[in-house]
Amino acid sequence: MKPFDIDSKVLIVGLGLLGGSYAKALSKKGIYVSAIDTRTESINYALENGIIKDGSDSVNEALIKAADVIVFALYPKVFINWIKENQALFCPGTLITDVTGVKKCVVDEINAVLRHDVEFVAAHPMAGREVYGVENSDDRIFNGANYIVVPTERNTKEGIDNCKKLGIYLGFARIAELSPEKHDEMIGFVSQLTHCIAVSLMTCCDDESLVDYTGDSFRDLTRIARINDAMWSELFMLNKDSLLKQMDVFIDEFRELKNLISDGNVPVLRDKMKLSTKRRALFDRK
Amino acid sequence: MKPFDIDSKVLIVGLGLLGGSYAKALSKKGIYVSAIDTRTESINYALENGIIKDGSDSVNEALIKAADVIVFALYPKVFINWIKENQALFCPGTLITDVTGVKKCVVDEINAVLRHDVEFVAAHPMAGREVYGVENSDDRIFNGANYIVVPTERNTKEGIDNCKKLGIYLGFARIAELSPEKHDEMIGFVSQLTHCIAVSLMTCCDDESLVDYTGDSFRDLTRIARINDAMWSELFMLNKDSLLKQMDVFIDEFRELKNLISDGNVPVLRDKMKLSTKRRALFDRK
Repeated sequence: MKPFDIDSKVLIVGLGLLGGSYAKALSKKGIYVSAIDTRTESINYALENGIIKDGSDSVNEALIKAADVIVFALYPKVFINWIKENQALFCPGTLITDVTGVKKCVVDEINAVLRHDVEFVAAHPMAGREVYGVENSDDRIFNGANYIVVPTERNTKEGIDNCKKLGIYLGFARIAELSPEKHDEMIGFVSQLTHCIAVSLMTCCDDESLVDYTGDSFRDLTRIARINDAMWSELFMLNKDSLLKQMDVFIDEFRELKNLISDGNVPVLRDKMKLSTKRRALFDRK
Repeated sequence: MKPFDIDSKVLIVGLGLLGGSYAKALSKKGIYVSAIDTRTESINYALENGIIKDGSDSVNEALIKAADVIVFALYPKVFINWIKENQALFCPGTLITDVTGVKKCVVDEINAVLRHDVEFVAAHPMAGREVYGVENSDDRIFNGANYIVVPTERNTKEGIDNCKKLGIYLGFARIAELSPEKHDEMIGFVSQLTHCIAVSLMTCCDDESLVDYTGDSFRDLTRIARINDAMWSELFMLNKDSLLKQMDVFIDEFRELKNLISDGNVPVLRDKMKLSTKRRALFDRK
């Protein structure tokens, strides 16, 4: 496999918000970027705005063969089906990567079918927005954010390094590495659980006049309650066990806090708040 | 009572983050602002930086008598005690207001003791930061935010109007009015419940390496987990019944969501997400 470098050619399959933001970030660094997306307007928009150099609204053999790296920015199941149907078109040595929000089931399914002369290194860019489409893409979403490479036994050092370099070129602040199992456990907590909380907070009270009185706390906790229901329900189902476990952990802790308030146990309540304050300080962007 | 106007004199008692931000906002509009705070450095800092025109680190009769409006930016119990001890110093006709985050118990206690020749109109500026002190004060926290006036039967139209005008001069985007009971119910939901969720999310998992992998969702939901434990435990205790009720409402909804995930009931799960998306759209800052 050729080392990833300034003259590498990257093909993005799925030119939505995230695919488009990948394309913008890489094009700005001087990387040759092409794209495939079934939505013709997305390809035209990206071409007209200099986000990609070449593109097609259908599976295009020339674009696939010309690419050193192919990034799949599709929903998990669509991604898996695409590989099954079109992998014959890959050149040997191509690096395949993705942006999928769950990993264990995806890497297992892909590895079960993937040709052995191409390499799939799974990755999860921890960045997003509550808007859709290449028209809203913005490479600044990667600033200060984490990029997680999720290797398996089938991966080579070269493949993993190339995938990490892609994360660096995209502008991520931190490149980390996790196993598929650890990734899914972590994502069940920091991402899926938080989306469940935000949705519940938004749906548990139907008093729409609240908007007249709300402060930033409520806005912050519900920003992600604007949710792509097709994508997130798919992600939840693909990581169900881990998510349910994290929901239980949270409910137990929340109930403990409720009991402290109910009992008027101010000293222990304050200890909880001090602990949360101390821990949260670690999470400030550095 | 004199109508609140550009030549009104405002005294801030308690020159912390919020008191300091009030002082900055009003001074910039040309209002004469003085302050009392037991922390000498706060008074000196505010004088040196043009945030106030006059100040004292002790209860100062001249400052109190000169003020048309006195804003108490203190913790609830400190505020109530201050009134009990020092209200003899008020001029008749002075408008008293506050920034306290709970209202029913505060207005009841104040109204039970307050002289009848001054008027207390309670208010809640829905703005804050996770930092302390006049040194961090910033009048931009009021931009786009809500200011809630919480009148009682003892208030006059003039008093309420003056309190609202103060909110307008401070730069709040929306001036609303709520009864003490409605205020506390609302605040139990949009503010106290959200702080409980953020604290629980931060304390339910002790894996500190999470910081290497986290995305914006987790950061957003835990921003307010950096919490002033002295102030918030006091606020929780003063609004305990309403808060506990809201915690139960949230737990029930969260558990319903958990059951949908557990049952793999994707259609209803997606309906919940669609509802949360639709509702959340109302909360975007206008």
